[in-house]
Amino acid sequence: MTRSASPLLPIAYSDEVTAAKARGAPLVALESTIITHGMPYPGNLEMARSVERIIREEGAVPATIAVIDGVLHIGLDDAELEALAQTEGAMKVSRADLAFAIAERRTGATTVAATMIGAALAGIRVFATGGIGGVHRKAEETFDISADLEELARTAVIVVCAGAKAILDIPKTLEVLETRGVPVVTYDSPNFPAFWSRDSGLPSPLMLNSPAAIANFQAVRERLGIDGGMLVANPVPAENEIPRREMEIYIERALDNAERDEITGKEVTPYLLNTIFRLTDGRSLATNIALVENNARLAAEIAVAMAV
Amino acid sequence: MTRSASPLLPIAYSDEVTAAKARGAPLVALESTIITHGMPYPGNLEMARSVERIIREEGAVPATIAVIDGVLHIGLDDAELEALAQTEGAMKVSRADLAFAIAERRTGATTVAATMIGAALAGIRVFATGGIGGVHRKAEETFDISADLEELARTAVIVVCAGAKAILDIPKTLEVLETRGVPVVTYDSPNFPAFWSRDSGLPSPLMLNSPAAIANFQAVRERLGIDGGMLVANPVPAENEIPRREMEIYIERALDNAERDEITGKEVTPYLLNTIFRLTDGRSLATNIALVENNARLAAEIAVAMAV
Amino acid sequence: MTRSASPLLPIAYSDEVTAAKARGAPLVALESTIITHGMPYPGNLEMARSVERIIREEGAVPATIAVIDGVLHIGLDDAELEALAQTEGAMKVSRADLAFAIAERRTGATTVAATMIGAALAGIRVFATGGIGGVHRKAEETFDISADLEELARTAVIVVCAGAKAILDIPKTLEVLETRGVPVVTYDSPNFPAFWSRDSGLPSPLMLNSPAAIANFQAVRERLGIDGGMLVANPVPAENEIPRREMEIYIERALDNAERDEITGKEVTPYLLNTIFRLTDGRSLATNIALVENNARLAAEIAVAMAV
Ligand SMILES: [Mn+2]
Ligand SMILES: [Mn+2]
Ligand SMILES: [Mn+2]
Repeated sequence: MTRSASPLLPIAYSDEVTAAKARGAPLVALESTIITHGMPYPGNLEMARSVERIIREEGAVPATIAVIDGVLHIGLDDAELEALAQTEGAMKVSRADLAFAIAERRTGATTVAATMIGAALAGIRVFATGGIGGVHRKAEETFDISADLEELARTAVIVVCAGAKAILDIPKTLEVLETRGVPVVTYDSPNFPAFWSRDSGLPSPLMLNSPAAIANFQAVRERLGIDGGMLVANPVPAENEIPRREMEIYIERALDNAERDEITGKEVTPYLLNTIFRLTDGRSLATNIALVENNARLAAEIAVAMAV
Repeated sequence: MTRSASPLLPIAYSDEVTAAKARGAPLVALESTIITHGMPYPGNLEMARSVERIIREEGAVPATIAVIDGVLHIGLDDAELEALAQTEGAMKVSRADLAFAIAERRTGATTVAATMIGAALAGIRVFATGGIGGVHRKAEETFDISADLEELARTAVIVVCAGAKAILDIPKTLEVLETRGVPVVTYDSPNFPAFWSRDSGLPSPLMLNSPAAIANFQAVRERLGIDGGMLVANPVPAENEIPRREMEIYIERALDNAERDEITGKEVTPYLLNTIFRLTDGRSLATNIALVENNARLAAEIAVAMAV
Repeated sequence: MTRSASPLLPIAYSDEVTAAKARGAPLVALESTIITHGMPYPGNLEMARSVERIIREEGAVPATIAVIDGVLHIGLDDAELEALAQTEGAMKVSRADLAFAIAERRTGATTVAATMIGAALAGIRVFATGGIGGVHRKAEETFDISADLEELARTAVIVVCAGAKAILDIPKTLEVLETRGVPVVTYDSPNFPAFWSRDSGLPSPLMLNSPAAIANFQAVRERLGIDGGMLVANPVPAENEIPRREMEIYIERALDNAERDEITGKEVTPYLLNTIFRLTDGRSLATNIALVENNARLAAEIAVAMAV
């Protein structure tokens, strides 16, 4: 269902993306880590299909990005999506190792950073995700900061998210984005959201109230020759949110448990998310799905506005 | 008095800058935050005019950069300068939001970072300011670091200043500049200055003693293909300085007051500068004006040397 | 023995490098700080000659990089190598001051960062060194982080080393490399090495087991348009290593002595290395030479594989 564009760089566009590019239709990139590492089968497949459907309903074309057996896919057909949703042991690839997965003929799910690189390579300027990585709590001691922030400083893609995952240090994440010159625009709200919650308690650096305004802002950036990406923070709908006061209790408890159980390094984030899932009786996952769908809708609207 | 260069990118060059560019005359960029946020009217207007006059006396052409009602101005005529000096509520724009002010048709004063972007866009290679932003005190806890440092690492403009504002953490600011590969050249002094004081107590990474040597250094960088800017630190003249031992007392007191009054975030820097103004009976402002004028003179000399 | 390529940019290629470039032969860059600042004469000259010999034996051509009297040398003939090995007071140049040494007609030994810049300028894609700079211990307080990490994030050269010098904070160094998107590949071992020791106790982000695989990984990165360098960590041969448990005792003692003797700033690293030399009865130097030779061999093999 896909074609390889080059014998040297194994890249495959789905038929739908190929057709969209040919007619200049608006495209929205999607990451694959949420599919392979974010939720279990078959919920992950349902979420992935629902997000793609929303993007099509809004008049844009979805392009889920992943490395499958060493081929960089820009857009997956339904059989590929289903297979990826059942894959075990996929790498989680970022800027440092996207090319590694290709070179070593591995299967790799793309993080925000690697999806941005794939999107930019394919000429896709808008990307919908759940939450970006950021500055980890205690990063003042560990220096643990996601490569997503570096990528936002470098690569000209609009990333639509519900903020940074609230288990991170959000004030420090906003500071690093400011230092690196990344615009942070909250959609239709003066406050920066906190993933599961509509409000992090922190004012948003910038606010815009329409997809057209966001598209225009990005167009001016490009004409000025300002490179790097833009973060659009889209608060989860009120009916789906878990308010901040409530979430903070769960997050604190999850952090305490992680310390008690001596969880460190790469194990911390999945441990925290699982603990929060348990503490909220699964509401955190329902909110996660709702916010990804909400972001897909806004990303499609922005892509449509940019194509005008 | 100005013309718009493009319907897509609203940019307006002053007549003086247009003529200078046509004949290849040396240009010096100037920021506008110092006008709108740095001192009150009419002192700010007098300072702005005096700085422009000094640059002309040295044989170069000043280009004050600002966004006025959504148009990026490279060079202001006197009426525009006067209007800007009386503007209330201008945005303070950096890399992240320079394009935002243009897209949203706002008025924005350019920080060091945004002025560098505007200068580079207009082909202006030298820029005079008071002091750059840097690493804030307690940044090891807050991660509060100015986007000016990022811009110096990226954009090929020579920034002539009197060091970083001494309310910042100067040792850490020098470390970040070293890490990011930004040359720090102190003019005619072995020690890095501290804005109001000629000497921060820290050795300067590099020293040069003539505008021609600075121009030559930058020319070699460009030929090597090394991108990014250069910081030229120009100690305030001895007759205008407030010595470091004295300033440190005022700065410590201002920091104590800020803590007592629970000043946080973006409020800290203006609070500190106002407190220091009060504690020095206005001498800090007189020194500030003197050092900006001193920097304008050196910047013009460097621009002239680069045009040879 | 060398020719100047341009009157504007004083750059001189050795005859051997010129011939290699003409016939498309594989090249390996070498730094010069190790010669001028790393060990005393005549040991430094013997080491430099031995490293060059190893590269030639593997079918590649060595290009030692240095600034001599304001000329950027890409490749030194034997007389130049000998003279450099006896030079006193050479600058130690990084990204910020490589052009300064050229502009001011000084002699400068190139660090990892500056050697990468020289190599990229000369079209050399592989570089062998001992250990890279990184995040210094206590950098959470001092912000002291080597410009080598910035250069790895920017410049497309493969740097073959034995890890970061173990006097640094290795966990934080790996975090910064991850954040900046730099691939860290350990050669034929799952664990990241620690310069004098084969194992730092930390897992390596990536592992590859052949020069061809490393060459292929880099080729895919280039085809994807991913800029920046790659770190290849090559554990010192077992017969030459000083095991980690032993080294940690020496390093701790050296750090204690440095604190007792109030050594600060740029003095710390040479002080620590000298103390460790003394505490190990010179074994640390023998290991250092062995690992540089080991890295030269692997770098040559990678360069040969890339030329295929
Ligand atoms: Mn991390
Ligand atoms: Mn700040
Ligand atoms: Mn340092």
